[in-house]
Amino acid sequence: MVSQRIKHPGLAQRIMPAEQAAAFISDRMSVGMSGFTGSGYPKAVPLALAAHIEAEHAAGRDMRVKIWTGASTGPELDGALAKANGIEMRLPYNSDPIARERINRGEMDYLDMHLSQVAPVAWQGFLGPLDIAVIEVSGIREDGSLIPSSSVGNNKTWLDRADRVILEVNSWQNPALEGMHDIYYGTALPPHRVPIPLIRPDDRIGQSSFRCDPDRIIAIVETEAPDRNAPFSPPDASAAAIAGHLLEFLTHEVGRGRLPASLLPLQSGVGNIANAVLSGLLDSPFENMTAYTEVIQDGMLDLLDAGKLRMASATAFSLSPEAAERANAGMTRYRDKMILRPQEISNHPELIRRLGCIAMNGLIEADIYGNINSTHVMGSRIQNGIGGSGDFARNAYISIFMTPSTAKGGAISAIVPHASHVDHITQDVQVIVTEQGLADLRGLSPKKRADLIIERCAHPDYRPALRDYYRRAKEGSYGLQSPMLPGEALAWHQRYLDTGTMRS
Amino acid sequence: MVSQRIKHPGLAQRIMPAEQAAAFISDRMSVGMSGFTGSGYPKAVPLALAAHIEAEHAAGRDMRVKIWTGASTGPELDGALAKANGIEMRLPYNSDPIARERINRGEMDYLDMHLSQVAPVAWQGFLGPLDIAVIEVSGIREDGSLIPSSSVGNNKTWLDRADRVILEVNSWQNPALEGMHDIYYGTALPPHRVPIPLIRPDDRIGQSSFRCDPDRIIAIVETEAPDRNAPFSPPDASAAAIAGHLLEFLTHEVGRGRLPASLLPLQSGVGNIANAVLSGLLDSPFENMTAYTEVIQDGMLDLLDAGKLRMASATAFSLSPEAAERANAGMTRYRDKMILRPQEISNHPELIRRLGCIAMNGLIEADIYGNINSTHVMGSRIQNGIGGSGDFARNAYISIFMTPSTAKGGAISAIVPHASHVDHITQDVQVIVTEQGLADLRGLSPKKRADLIIERCAHPDYRPALRDYYRRAKEGSYGLQSPMLPGEALAWHQRYLDTGTMRS
Repeated sequence: MVSQRIKHPGLAQRIMPAEQAAAFISDRMSVGMSGFTGSGYPKAVPLALAAHIEAEHAAGRDMRVKIWTGASTGPELDGALAKANGIEMRLPYNSDPIARERINRGEMDYLDMHLSQVAPVAWQGFLGPLDIAVIEVSGIREDGSLIPSSSVGNNKTWLDRADRVILEVNSWQNPALEGMHDIYYGTALPPHRVPIPLIRPDDRIGQSSFRCDPDRIIAIVETEAPDRNAPFSPPDASAAAIAGHLLEFLTHEVGRGRLPASLLPLQSGVGNIANAVLSGLLDSPFENMTAYTEVIQDGMLDLLDAGKLRMASATAFSLSPEAAERANAGMTRYRDKMILRPQEISNHPELIRRLGCIAMNGLIEADIYGNINSTHVMGSRIQNGIGGSGDFARNAYISIFMTPSTAKGGAISAIVPHASHVDHITQDVQVIVTEQGLADLRGLSPKKRADLIIERCAHPDYRPALRDYYRRAKEGSYGLQSPMLPGEALAWHQRYLDTGTMRS
Repeated sequence: MVSQRIKHPGLAQRIMPAEQAAAFISDRMSVGMSGFTGSGYPKAVPLALAAHIEAEHAAGRDMRVKIWTGASTGPELDGALAKANGIEMRLPYNSDPIARERINRGEMDYLDMHLSQVAPVAWQGFLGPLDIAVIEVSGIREDGSLIPSSSVGNNKTWLDRADRVILEVNSWQNPALEGMHDIYYGTALPPHRVPIPLIRPDDRIGQSSFRCDPDRIIAIVETEAPDRNAPFSPPDASAAAIAGHLLEFLTHEVGRGRLPASLLPLQSGVGNIANAVLSGLLDSPFENMTAYTEVIQDGMLDLLDAGKLRMASATAFSLSPEAAERANAGMTRYRDKMILRPQEISNHPELIRRLGCIAMNGLIEADIYGNINSTHVMGSRIQNGIGGSGDFARNAYISIFMTPSTAKGGAISAIVPHASHVDHITQDVQVIVTEQGLADLRGLSPKKRADLIIERCAHPDYRPALRDYYRRAKEGSYGLQSPMLPGEALAWHQRYLDTGTMRS
């Protein structure tokens, strides 16, 4: 069965076990792997590499590698390699809990990057050479071109840049994926860059497969393992309330003539709240919607099925096992309604600004002026990474951030006097939504933003303390553009670290 | 003499004194004025408006207006109106000291915006209607089209959006400006946006004049006053040292093949250090350079004269009186080497990313991870605004920030444990330069950035305290991705407020 996927006769000769392929990777190499939000990552070679590294360590030999991917991967990649303490440096995004723990213990270097910038930066050269690429594909054509898998990510760039290439051909991936991808080969380094000719989310500007000189492919490994596919958790009351506020806002904007009735291309972060918003759109009056986003998640399948969403452009799938089964079963039908692109295109500032995306992202904390911390718990402990939120938030037509107003059973307020780390500056944050309400901050100066964020978004339990801080800041601040008391601004975070709660 | 500037016969009938024109502006109106970095702003109507507002206030009547511009203007506009307490809200940028004082006393609302986003946001509609535009031009053609002045800024948008238009025709502006401008009329709201067809800094994609239906022009005022034109201060030793480090870096990058020998289009902030860098480029090996930037300043004229700079694209001039005289005398010669564009084009993320600009901007403080505060002294007191620094820094090929390592005679360290306000996140800050040295932060994770910033950029007097904080943060931090002690992170700022110095 598997051999049917490898139609290039020469390459069929290079099939080998994962252990043998992994042996091409040696100490301190930079390895570009496929994978984006738990889909399309290699499943066998990283496991074999982790075993090899563990054996080396057991024999008293040092071995660690640098891992570049699209975004997050799965336990067979980040989990296994981090467990083996085999990752010296990781970029551009991680959500694996074992790797996260190593990073936060200072045992692993982590370069948290804007996802649109990874490929251009790799070409720019200061990251050094890319020694080897390990890329999952769903097949190899007679001419040696490669049929992409369930994510595109930075695969085009890794295939172009790496000295040598290892492929995993995964027969679990649906063969009907073929034709869904749009791989754009028009990027360049300046001064040779030209306009990217995409003006609608459904434009196809590239080809359906990757190019790769067969001579650079040193190994092919056959696999049939599923993507990570995290289970879907139905929206809780908080997520449903957030979705409700947001839909009311969008309806209002359409009513005022400030958004078309089909909205503008949607970008949506991953997770519970994002899926709640997408579910909410099922019952909305909006028709013929489109998505120009990073990942296609469960809620988008529902919208496509219902005919509310006309098409979705992304760089990867991020589905629950049930939705993945549904997607696989209906792939022939979905194929014309979905496009998977390289992440430098799905997240390109030029295209996000041109299309006028409605960006919807999560956060860890927002301060009273609407500076957003998306990455560092208590200012120092990385959660996942900035991902594509910066690409979208700065260039969106409307940049929306969503969060429950509290975390850890109320011990943490998502609205704080001063963000302990900033990923999105006030200029890039136009709407904040919690289950308490929605603050439309567009066109407002800092103090007017503060009034709205405290009264509309903060949890009632934390509102008095926020009001008290803000009132005193207005009395005692050095300047009154963005009133602040430096001696107290981060006291809530220190209190949480000291006592386990931000409550005083 | 002036009447020669107004060649449309119908419009010549609408010439009136500034006082009469200013009377069209009434309480709470939103007024879009021309002006960018002290050039091309109206000089007579704002003064007359300020006098009118003072008279209204003296008579016990409330009167304040909302002022939208390109960026900073001159004392006749922001200074006079702020002195009269006539500004209710100001956007998108201010550097006037009287207005700054009002803002920091909480007496004036200030919306500090990305300069590329002002025009799109005005079209988007949530700022409300623009009641009137007051635009300086250098002449009116027979067909009623308007010859722009020494800045373009948002004038196209104000002329398109405003219900009514007041023009100032300034005969101080050189008539040879005609033909220098490139006014692009291809912008739109999504879903109607298309690629902007500019691929080189010297491409012309528009027309040399503004369109404006003569019926909407309600008044024309003749002026002959010069632009603000702040005096040029020659680089001090610190600025010269910064320029030296930066030129060494650029030379190194060219040597490594990571930059072309003519570099890439330069963007440069305004001021002493920027001019020192431009002076340094005079003696550099780089030839055929280009600039794609906001303003044409003294140092760029020198580079153009020396034949080192092939051409400069900007949205405004920002010259000393001597350089303005030189520019005026040689305008016919300079005209083919300079292009002034709308600021939504000069600062457009799509174009900055495509061209691969080398962005060089100033800062107020950087923290040890390279988060940059460009706007708020001690976290709360606005200095000027973010201006175009965010447009350029995020999309640049190399994003460089420059500053002396201390301010206020050493009482303030420009390198601090934790930025008291963040305008540019670590991902958007690739190189930091002080007179002490240069930190190339590209491809480095936060802790490696901290090591470099402390050792290369901080002043030796502050290095021990920074090392001490950072060492203790690595021991006591909640997570070790970006070690931090919330209880102490802003202590340097509090100490400055308490004692007048950050030194302990």
